[in-house]
Amino acid sequence: MTLNVTIWNEYRHETSREDVRKVYPDGLHGPIADHLRSEGMTVRVATLDEPEHGLTEAALADTDVLTWWGHLAHYEVSDEIVARVQQRVLDGMGLIVLHSGHHSKIFRSLMGTTCNLIWREADERERIWVVEPGHPIAAGLGSYFEIPREEMYGERFDIPAPDTLVFVSWFQGGEVFRSGCCYQRGLGKIFYFRPGHEMYPTYYQKEVLQVIANAVKWAAPAGAPAVMFGNRPPLEKF
Amino acid sequence: MTLNVTIWNEYRHETSREDVRKVYPDGLHGPIADHLRSEGMTVRVATLDEPEHGLTEAALADTDVLTWWGHLAHYEVSDEIVARVQQRVLDGMGLIVLHSGHHSKIFRSLMGTTCNLIWREADERERIWVVEPGHPIAAGLGSYFEIPREEMYGERFDIPAPDTLVFVSWFQGGEVFRSGCCYQRGLGKIFYFRPGHEMYPTYYQKEVLQVIANAVKWAAPAGAPAVMFGNRPPLEKF
Amino acid sequence: MTLNVTIWNEYRHETSREDVRKVYPDGLHGPIADHLRSEGMTVRVATLDEPEHGLTEAALADTDVLTWWGHLAHYEVSDEIVARVQQRVLDGMGLIVLHSGHHSKIFRSLMGTTCNLIWREADERERIWVVEPGHPIAAGLGSYFEIPREEMYGERFDIPAPDTLVFVSWFQGGEVFRSGCCYQRGLGKIFYFRPGHEMYPTYYQKEVLQVIANAVKWAAPAGAPAVMFGNRPPLEKF
Amino acid sequence: MTLNVTIWNEYRHETSREDVRKVYPDGLHGPIADHLRSEGMTVRVATLDEPEHGLTEAALADTDVLTWWGHLAHYEVSDEIVARVQQRVLDGMGLIVLHSGHHSKIFRSLMGTTCNLIWREADERERIWVVEPGHPIAAGLGSYFEIPREEMYGERFDIPAPDTLVFVSWFQGGEVFRSGCCYQRGLGKIFYFRPGHEMYPTYYQKEVLQVIANAVKWAAPAGAPAVMFGNRPPLEKF
Repeated sequence: MTLNVTIWNEYRHETSREDVRKVYPDGLHGPIADHLRSEGMTVRVATLDEPEHGLTEAALADTDVLTWWGHLAHYEVSDEIVARVQQRVLDGMGLIVLHSGHHSKIFRSLMGTTCNLIWREADERERIWVVEPGHPIAAGLGSYFEIPREEMYGERFDIPAPDTLVFVSWFQGGEVFRSGCCYQRGLGKIFYFRPGHEMYPTYYQKEVLQVIANAVKWAAPAGAPAVMFGNRPPLEKF
Repeated sequence: MTLNVTIWNEYRHETSREDVRKVYPDGLHGPIADHLRSEGMTVRVATLDEPEHGLTEAALADTDVLTWWGHLAHYEVSDEIVARVQQRVLDGMGLIVLHSGHHSKIFRSLMGTTCNLIWREADERERIWVVEPGHPIAAGLGSYFEIPREEMYGERFDIPAPDTLVFVSWFQGGEVFRSGCCYQRGLGKIFYFRPGHEMYPTYYQKEVLQVIANAVKWAAPAGAPAVMFGNRPPLEKF
Repeated sequence: MTLNVTIWNEYRHETSREDVRKVYPDGLHGPIADHLRSEGMTVRVATLDEPEHGLTEAALADTDVLTWWGHLAHYEVSDEIVARVQQRVLDGMGLIVLHSGHHSKIFRSLMGTTCNLIWREADERERIWVVEPGHPIAAGLGSYFEIPREEMYGERFDIPAPDTLVFVSWFQGGEVFRSGCCYQRGLGKIFYFRPGHEMYPTYYQKEVLQVIANAVKWAAPAGAPAVMFGNRPPLEKF
Repeated sequence: MTLNVTIWNEYRHETSREDVRKVYPDGLHGPIADHLRSEGMTVRVATLDEPEHGLTEAALADTDVLTWWGHLAHYEVSDEIVARVQQRVLDGMGLIVLHSGHHSKIFRSLMGTTCNLIWREADERERIWVVEPGHPIAAGLGSYFEIPREEMYGERFDIPAPDTLVFVSWFQGGEVFRSGCCYQRGLGKIFYFRPGHEMYPTYYQKEVLQVIANAVKWAAPAGAPAVMFGNRPPLEKF
């Protein structure tokens, strides 16, 4: 079965800032889309400024896994669309939240917490350690991998404890971060993955793309039962 | 240290229906308040129809643990008060959600899911099994306890998997339910406890009261660090 | 990739008792092996009375997922073979523990607890509820399924809280049981699945076979990194 | 209620090496015992070379929480005593495993995994971040604390995912480590806490002592039910 992936990108930095456009001339979504296509997935791109942010009922119904990158304009995402995406996740669509998407309405609504953290822009080295190597999202990696320069995100990260913690990041300046976090919410699987500041070529890096592809495969719907809810007669005489 | 507990009750069934008033002449909150006071706690009662639902900033600031019972009128609780309570939980206040409070705005906001379930009103016996007997909320119980007649709640209960599952209920008509569920969200502890249909004298039962008292003690703030968030200088030269 | 499955069966009841042989003329492993083969898997059967219990180094090295059924003779399984299987699980082999295998040396060694429970042989109906319908092991089921007659297993089940709880059983006589439990240990995935008393035709039932096949697929190795351990030079000058 | 704590120390480094004796003239257990006594606990010390390693049935029966430090001589601890301690934990005694105790027989038996890790002795700075500040073991700390010089322990740490992850360490040389890990096993609570190489004055440091005291209080038995196991009559006619 071919996976249908929708890559959602805020797509404002790349269109308004020359320095970001130099790093991502095809948008932050570009190299991710290329990689997922090379893995045989069907990829659609959706952005903030399209009607309904490109996330119509039809588009979501046809999406197995949605990836989400946003930063500047979380509050321009309409509450109605956020509620629609949330319901679709609870109904089984996978969701991969990238980097500054930690503060998106959709991630905060699904987590129930502030998703606050500490951060610093200082060209630091990030070393991402695999703490749960048996998890499918770690497939094909080594004990760790390194990103030469990234924005720092540090603990306390105000999230519910992940169902599975796959990665922990080390930063040169002295911090750690739970950078690969799995959740089940309703019938949907959610993965938060830390890297991806718009000023660095992170989404061209082989290991980062591999993690995203692994995560998409892991988060794809798994044939879940159509569970019943509501008022029910007794199953048994008593 | 004396614990300050606020018992929040929708308080509509008892004021509008004679049959419920017969069971709970002092409100559903009455026997709970009596029991927690008998354990040395300071108890305040707050209800839907008070100004700000009785949950002013001052009242919440002075509350260590809030208990919540609502049923008919979840949508009359103002979004502003829900956001206030949610932030207070994330800042460390404990929250005990009782029975039909599973569909309250506050519980759904903190869980991020629908919190749907199956249910039936049929005077069934409920047997509550202790699956994690080492947890402090199970202190003083036996292997199980029984409620002679209750409303049935059954799985699938659409919640995030609890951090700790303490109780599972068996129902006469053929269902099971995760009826005692612990969560950490932000600095706050949350416990969902299933029993408590308004037509049955559940909140007079010794084991039920003991569980609520145990849960309040467990959910009380534990001297958490004032964690930092936001932009930070490097801790280390590099 | 074809999955290599080894079905381990104590195989004593079927060879020594006429009533069990009537139910399972080809052994308890027979219908399981047939079903997994019909799903395209390569299946080998190993039993207690073979040399090394059929679990030689070579056999284990060639096994992606091992299933385990034992009951009468847990203490005839040699400690050396148990240690070998345990290491193989930690190195990535999946393990599916069935029914009375809860008291096997291998399961107890991997869990670290007694794995005690309550039980009763009384021809009771078991209803298995799906509490985590989004998990791949629940694929293709409904909200629940029923086994007409089974042995009762009840809580407290003395196991570590599962990483994921997929099923909870209801029994006619008044008990509940965590009957589908997922664990990650080392690089290996473990699933405990409750049903399968030797006197009942449980392993011919469609839903039971489907769960076992789902579990085998879920527990198959996922391309885990070869993690490093031991003394390491600094990765960084400091 | 006064807590009865037994501090178990291998006590070989301090008696055989002058450099370690200089750091811990009263044994590694000395400053821990002093601190717990200053918190009003009743403290007994037990060491490897005492009869039954100081862990007689009577001593364990009178212990609410046991702390464990070992390093050189894990394999001199008798299997019989390990089994006795394990059973006592499953029956409700708390267990705090310190530093190189990660490779002790008792911790490995309770975890079911190798508990391997990477390590390096290089006088590195360790910064311990609080990732779950609402947990009672973090009470009274800040966002992090620092140990000026320690042995490095790094991931992959081959343990079951902790029920609650309280601390993550950052090391100067480029590694991270899950350094504060909570487990429930049977009726007993277990906490693994990383710091404490014998060459450094770690157990005199205020924050380290506070964490150990917090952990002892958290792990103390909580009035657990005497759960039943074994063959049971039906609770209900059917």
